[in-house]
Amino acid sequence: MGSNKYQDLLKEITWNEQGLVPVIAQEYDSGDVLMMAWMNEAAFIKTLEIGQAVYWSRSRNKLWHKGEESGHFQIIKSIHLDCDGDTLLIKVEQTGGIACHTGAHSCFFRDMEKDDTVKADEPSFKWQK
Amino acid sequence: MGSNKYQDLLKEITWNEQGLVPVIAQEYDSGDVLMMAWMNEAAFIKTLEIGQAVYWSRSRNKLWHKGEESGHFQIIKSIHLDCDGDTLLIKVEQTGGIACHTGAHSCFFRDMEKDDTVKADEPSFKWQK
Repeated sequence: MGSNKYQDLLKEITWNEQGLVPVIAQEYDSGDVLMMAWMNEAAFIKTLEIGQAVYWSRSRNKLWHKGEESGHFQIIKSIHLDCDGDTLLIKVEQTGGIACHTGAHSCFFRDMEKDDTVKADEPSFKWQK
Repeated sequence: MGSNKYQDLLKEITWNEQGLVPVIAQEYDSGDVLMMAWMNEAAFIKTLEIGQAVYWSRSRNKLWHKGEESGHFQIIKSIHLDCDGDTLLIKVEQTGGIACHTGAHSCFFRDMEKDDTVKADEPSFKWQK
């Protein structure tokens, strides 16, 4: 049981050739983009059922209830699908304010800044070390 | 020419088996997530060179300078790479405030809201029509 009642929801989503959809997790109050991960149908249904983000781990090849090891769960506030149905945006309350396995608030902590003082043969954007 | 000086930047990114990386575009001032698209190496280099978002269109199989037809360019404010290097976040100034080809501000305009009044055999999340 469980999946039948979700058929109408599932068919709105364009799943890729691996049966996955990319999911952007954004902190609902700060607006910070926390991470990007993937869901398959089972992960999406589980997310709806428990109201917390459940992804499909492509490296471990299994369902990944975000926070199951760290305690840093993502409580779903709302779910948004894009115009062509192939990307999800979830707005979440991030337990502990930590989304990244490194302990960082957001996974996007490697910043590239523009430097207009560089010479012509060097890139004007560089990764911050 | 042009690509040599970017080698150090390019090798920080984990490109997928199609040579692509997913890119999340976020409006730099509002924090709104606008869209998700893909870049290959050529698109990424072009983005750095012109300071505006250039994607790889998987449907048209060619470089796609965002706004080339609509005039709704995305001016790069900063670029961020995630912890495992396989997703980019770009913060942009969105010309005209319109990112979606439908004319919407953001591509993520199909919302799923929680409805706690539904019966047990119906999903508590539903797409808003």
